[in-house]
Amino acid sequence: MKYLYPGSFDPITNGHLDIIERAAKLCDTLYVVIGTNDAKQPYFTIAERIQMIKHSTKHIKNVIVDSTPSLMVDYALANNIGAIIRGFRNTSDFEVEQELFFFNNKLAPQIETIILYSKLANTHISSSNIKELYKYNREIKDFVPKIVLKYFENKNN
Amino acid sequence: MKYLYPGSFDPITNGHLDIIERAAKLCDTLYVVIGTNDAKQPYFTIAERIQMIKHSTKHIKNVIVDSTPSLMVDYALANNIGAIIRGFRNTSDFEVEQELFFFNNKLAPQIETIILYSKLANTHISSSNIKELYKYNREIKDFVPKIVLKYFENKNN
Amino acid sequence: MKYLYPGSFDPITNGHLDIIERAAKLCDTLYVVIGTNDAKQPYFTIAERIQMIKHSTKHIKNVIVDSTPSLMVDYALANNIGAIIRGFRNTSDFEVEQELFFFNNKLAPQIETIILYSKLANTHISSSNIKELYKYNREIKDFVPKIVLKYFENKNN
Amino acid sequence: MKYLYPGSFDPITNGHLDIIERAAKLCDTLYVVIGTNDAKQPYFTIAERIQMIKHSTKHIKNVIVDSTPSLMVDYALANNIGAIIRGFRNTSDFEVEQELFFFNNKLAPQIETIILYSKLANTHISSSNIKELYKYNREIKDFVPKIVLKYFENKNN
Amino acid sequence: MKYLYPGSFDPITNGHLDIIERAAKLCDTLYVVIGTNDAKQPYFTIAERIQMIKHSTKHIKNVIVDSTPSLMVDYALANNIGAIIRGFRNTSDFEVEQELFFFNNKLAPQIETIILYSKLANTHISSSNIKELYKYNREIKDFVPKIVLKYFENKNN
Amino acid sequence: MKYLYPGSFDPITNGHLDIIERAAKLCDTLYVVIGTNDAKQPYFTIAERIQMIKHSTKHIKNVIVDSTPSLMVDYALANNIGAIIRGFRNTSDFEVEQELFFFNNKLAPQIETIILYSKLANTHISSSNIKELYKYNREIKDFVPKIVLKYFENKNN
Repeated sequence: MKYLYPGSFDPITNGHLDIIERAAKLCDTLYVVIGTNDAKQPYFTIAERIQMIKHSTKHIKNVIVDSTPSLMVDYALANNIGAIIRGFRNTSDFEVEQELFFFNNKLAPQIETIILYSKLANTHISSSNIKELYKYNREIKDFVPKIVLKYFENKNN
Repeated sequence: MKYLYPGSFDPITNGHLDIIERAAKLCDTLYVVIGTNDAKQPYFTIAERIQMIKHSTKHIKNVIVDSTPSLMVDYALANNIGAIIRGFRNTSDFEVEQELFFFNNKLAPQIETIILYSKLANTHISSSNIKELYKYNREIKDFVPKIVLKYFENKNN
Repeated sequence: MKYLYPGSFDPITNGHLDIIERAAKLCDTLYVVIGTNDAKQPYFTIAERIQMIKHSTKHIKNVIVDSTPSLMVDYALANNIGAIIRGFRNTSDFEVEQELFFFNNKLAPQIETIILYSKLANTHISSSNIKELYKYNREIKDFVPKIVLKYFENKNN
Repeated sequence: MKYLYPGSFDPITNGHLDIIERAAKLCDTLYVVIGTNDAKQPYFTIAERIQMIKHSTKHIKNVIVDSTPSLMVDYALANNIGAIIRGFRNTSDFEVEQELFFFNNKLAPQIETIILYSKLANTHISSSNIKELYKYNREIKDFVPKIVLKYFENKNN
Repeated sequence: MKYLYPGSFDPITNGHLDIIERAAKLCDTLYVVIGTNDAKQPYFTIAERIQMIKHSTKHIKNVIVDSTPSLMVDYALANNIGAIIRGFRNTSDFEVEQELFFFNNKLAPQIETIILYSKLANTHISSSNIKELYKYNREIKDFVPKIVLKYFENKNN
Repeated sequence: MKYLYPGSFDPITNGHLDIIERAAKLCDTLYVVIGTNDAKQPYFTIAERIQMIKHSTKHIKNVIVDSTPSLMVDYALANNIGAIIRGFRNTSDFEVEQELFFFNNKLAPQIETIILYSKLANTHISSSNIKELYKYNREIKDFVPKIVLKYFENKNN
């Protein structure tokens, strides 16, 4: 079965990477897909984000990295995806996603939503946190794949 | 991969059945397992609960019904289970289970925890509710598999 | 329209009394009804609780105090009640009652559920708190109607 | 008694309509009022939103549709409103509104706040969701009154 | 020991002032520090906010008012702060800050995070609420130190 | 200033110990006090629990271990305590304690309530969890001070 892990990955963190590693074990192919039609102005370009994810996940055989301007549930239908994967860190995540689940379940009941808990060590890591730390010249190497550090540095040269 | 869906199933509800049907599609074999070492005094015996689950799930090929006096994570280790399935209805479920996840993740990091949302129509159904309604002579047929109605009636003759 | 305010009122507090006063303004008749089929062992008898509520609400013209062994929604149907009133103090109340609302809405869709927020000054008052304070010989006069103090004293002579 | 149901209704959804129908039964006159001094840039103009609400609620006799640049509690005071109606979908709604209730209760203690639960079938419907779905060319007819579909189409011709 | 109470204080409210008074009793010196590198456009300038805090806290001997463009944890390290003080009003505050605590605890484990509950009477007061009320010409004198009223008036002359 | 850390400590865990170590740094003397008038039947006797706490905290100079049948706020008043310390693991803790804070703040406004977050590594550790694990013959040495292991073993010989 194919699973889909959607997100903005701006940039990919160790929290994302952990979910990807765990989700990849549960399915035949895991699509990691960036939604490109988001209102928020991203920090990294789509091309940069795809490159960072590809590089960080090259040790996982069954991962495909992609991007889409469509609604995720439409991308899932078009690619014959069996389940959408979400990683949860706290109860706020839970409520926001529950609403989305009810919607997706109505739009495409054949597509399952699967939730994984963030590992204890990653519950405080988010892409926003990382960017905030970097802005203040704080070390971020414990929170992101190595390749992300390079992209931050390139961005600022 | 084998998945495990633990619970007290006292009795099995349409909410449980929906999770079983959806989880069975995600794995090769789904173990539905009653914990028998629970502090609470059950309404139905273990034998009755196993019979009700077996009867309600006989249309699903890859389901095995069992019971255990052990810690669920030990049962999972002994049976080579890849993931434990949980069905969530609200944020309280979320917090209680997150604690359990952190524990299980420490005791047996190789066993994944997978959460599925309860379907909208089932968010208000629980075994406790069913027993409460039955006690007050209210109809419960919309909330449980048919076989459960019979067991309630037998219990009271 | 008739409204129903159910509870165990063991004993009635200033928090309950505030909800009763506010709810009574919203309807023609407000039924304040004690459920007598509750699992918990009460501190005060049903007769004592009814007397305390009657005495505390005698300044409100349109209040009827009663008790019932039935499911509240059945009592509501039998008495032609238009809405059930609930007072909320925090998010835990919210989730527990939401489940009950979905159930009642299915059992008797014609009966509305109306929620009022507890006033700021009452958010920390509950019957359990009052009994705890009394047990430790702490003053409770700021939290309950005067009549409740007498009933506590009688109970302990 | 007059009740007030405030909101941005950008656009009105079936969730709003359900609350309006239920609230209208609890009072003599229900004011449905759009706040026009909101920071967010709306999708539909005030005139469009008023027309959509009026058309969707024309089967309910005791509804008045209006808009105001004032604080809602001031509009309520000026129009002799007895209670403000809110529809809740989840615990986040609860906390945000509790703060507002404490404020309004201080500013105008004579005005009650009444909360109704969203019906199960509507818990996942919000104006934001609808606009998101429409943007992605997804069908929205199950979530909004028919008239809203027309206004979306006009907007895009 | 030195404690640090960070915030945007735009403007200082009676809720902030209560936390400052209580926190000042728990330490030798309390630093009240405005973060100046915040994304949000403030209503009052940094100089105005510092003046309002200084004036409102002049009756408390051990308070130092300051501002910083740095990450708060770096300011704390540079000034030999023993603990960061936070005032909590509800569960949303709790989750947002828990994430921050885990981060700070990793960046600087020697700096403690201390949480105080907002007093009952202040749970609904926030800087945003105050500005909203002022915008609608509502009285705000019960919610802020007197000096803040003057600054609002000056701003609008 | 003297601080008070109340609890049932049945038994003391590494989570408790971490809070004790951190709280002891914030005050002159830290009272760790077992409430003996609790409804729940404890696993260890008061004497055993006191011994375990004393042994586990002997490296901290300013800790006093005690027990009391009184309301904690009365114990605090009698012993001239300046603040009660609480350790929080999640939002449920937050709501339960907020109610208690409002009460204590009314009963004895001069006594502060100070909340510390549980460290990330301890968020899943509770006395109940430990007893559950021990009951199922699972190793608990990573979650409790060494002395607790001995007391468990003695209990079962």
